[in-house]
Amino acid sequence: MRPTAQSAVALGGGHGLHASLSALRQLHDDLTLDQVTAVVTVADNGGSSGRLRGEFGVLPPGDLRMALAALCGADDWGRTWADVVQHRFAGEGEMNGHVIGNLLIVGLWERLGDHVEALDWVGRLLGAHGRVLPMALTPLDITARVRGTHAADPTATSTVRGQVEVATTGGEIVSVALDPPDPTVCPEAVAAILDADWVVLGPGSWFSSVIPHLLIPALRDALERTDARLVVVLNLEPQDGETGGYGPEDHLGALLEHAPDLAIHTVLAERSTVTDVETLRAAVGSAGGELVLADLAERDDEGRVTPRHDHALLAAAYREIFEA
Amino acid sequence: MRPTAQSAVALGGGHGLHASLSALRQLHDDLTLDQVTAVVTVADNGGSSGRLRGEFGVLPPGDLRMALAALCGADDWGRTWADVVQHRFAGEGEMNGHVIGNLLIVGLWERLGDHVEALDWVGRLLGAHGRVLPMALTPLDITARVRGTHAADPTATSTVRGQVEVATTGGEIVSVALDPPDPTVCPEAVAAILDADWVVLGPGSWFSSVIPHLLIPALRDALERTDARLVVVLNLEPQDGETGGYGPEDHLGALLEHAPDLAIHTVLAERSTVTDVETLRAAVGSAGGELVLADLAERDDEGRVTPRHDHALLAAAYREIFEA
Repeated sequence: MRPTAQSAVALGGGHGLHASLSALRQLHDDLTLDQVTAVVTVADNGGSSGRLRGEFGVLPPGDLRMALAALCGADDWGRTWADVVQHRFAGEGEMNGHVIGNLLIVGLWERLGDHVEALDWVGRLLGAHGRVLPMALTPLDITARVRGTHAADPTATSTVRGQVEVATTGGEIVSVALDPPDPTVCPEAVAAILDADWVVLGPGSWFSSVIPHLLIPALRDALERTDARLVVVLNLEPQDGETGGYGPEDHLGALLEHAPDLAIHTVLAERSTVTDVETLRAAVGSAGGELVLADLAERDDEGRVTPRHDHALLAAAYREIFEA
Repeated sequence: MRPTAQSAVALGGGHGLHASLSALRQLHDDLTLDQVTAVVTVADNGGSSGRLRGEFGVLPPGDLRMALAALCGADDWGRTWADVVQHRFAGEGEMNGHVIGNLLIVGLWERLGDHVEALDWVGRLLGAHGRVLPMALTPLDITARVRGTHAADPTATSTVRGQVEVATTGGEIVSVALDPPDPTVCPEAVAAILDADWVVLGPGSWFSSVIPHLLIPALRDALERTDARLVVVLNLEPQDGETGGYGPEDHLGALLEHAPDLAIHTVLAERSTVTDVETLRAAVGSAGGELVLADLAERDDEGRVTPRHDHALLAAAYREIFEA
């Protein structure tokens, strides 16, 4: 007998959250999950999102739009909507670089004046198989203390400001913070975390998309209080800039440094990225969790691991964890 | 017994075509019509449409977008999509004045590279209850010979160029033409006219949205050859600029001047706008048609006729004509 359907909340942003939600949507489609909710970073300051944030004073829509695209249906209509909301204008004029889904979201915000109500409507209009919520109701900026950018003094630190700048810093990130430090949390996001059976954190840009959720006091508090089981999904590779040189246990360590009281149920990692299984297993164990290694990455034509998650493999790994 | 469902093609642009299609959609919803097709002017050169036409070298999307909005479903989801595609950005930056539906259409054009295929997809994505086609596959400009703009010589004529400029000219329009004069017609539009049971021409900006259909040789030819019965819907009032001072028979006369061989089945006019019924009836009769007077206009709180069509009244008038 199939176990009762469960609910899952995925936290993150960008391509990592898109991969995670694409996998969770498959579990929603096959009724393993009866509810999928995304809680999305709203600190983007670059590209189309940065322009719209500046022009309209709204949340940056880009990460929210990618999450909605991931939740679009698997049929022809849903796949086409997913492609269309992700479409970025070429051309050589004022529209260049803008993304259709970003404009759709901002238009609904302008019409309805309420971030969450408007996102719920966009989801309904696109037939999204789940709910997309912002982590906070006001736009954020990420700042990072960075070491190694002063040639004269390699131990000196400086502050880098902005998601784009943090994600591409040449230095080593010592810590990240939010500005404002205690933004208005999205209450529906807190409620979803408290109600969930499963919370999935990562994959994604570790310091600029994943850890920011732990920096909002009310969200971290919900993550520590919830009865939901927490699955941390490690990245397929370190990211030049923010996590250059990081191994799997360094990712986990950075997370726990920002939220030492987090109870971890499972850490999921792509098998081929883990060279020292025992060290990682020990690190996971001391955080109270269990390590699961699985094949998660897309392979290229020669069978080599790529830095992209295979949505079906990720879905299979989630299913195994959720049904265990 | 209900007569067999029929097909209708509506020709025009702007608010007039929007009203006509809103009425025809109701007839589609109650199964009086099994197919509704819009054939839309693509000569707009102002506002969001003009900017996008300039930036991307595509057809101006505005009139096509209004037609799609009119064909959105009557349920909450469809009505919301209709509102959203018509949403015009406020703000004070580069997006100001752009309309979401215009951007959606241009995005699909950019993705698919084919005007008709992309419009069919937009219709499917929005759940439109009918098909929206452009009258031509290349952007057009309308030019008008205008009298009365030279103070020194009131009989002298000059040329006005552009849909916006024609629609707002201070002079009296003597004739209109297209540039290029023989644009590439949309073959699906010709086929729809030839296959239709009913063709509806007007209401709308007479010289800049309605008569342009008669100026494309292949379209006029299809309108003259089709077995479809042609319904001409007159405007509720003259339009300052292009038809200032025009009575109902002047509208009809201007139409027939541009297409003398057109066989008219019915001329539909709002009862309150016709002061000299017999003169109009004679003019309609000599074009081979029958005059139908009906209440078509929205009334304000004091019961006075407004210049807006009431969609339900227009639908009722169409139903009576189609089922006669």
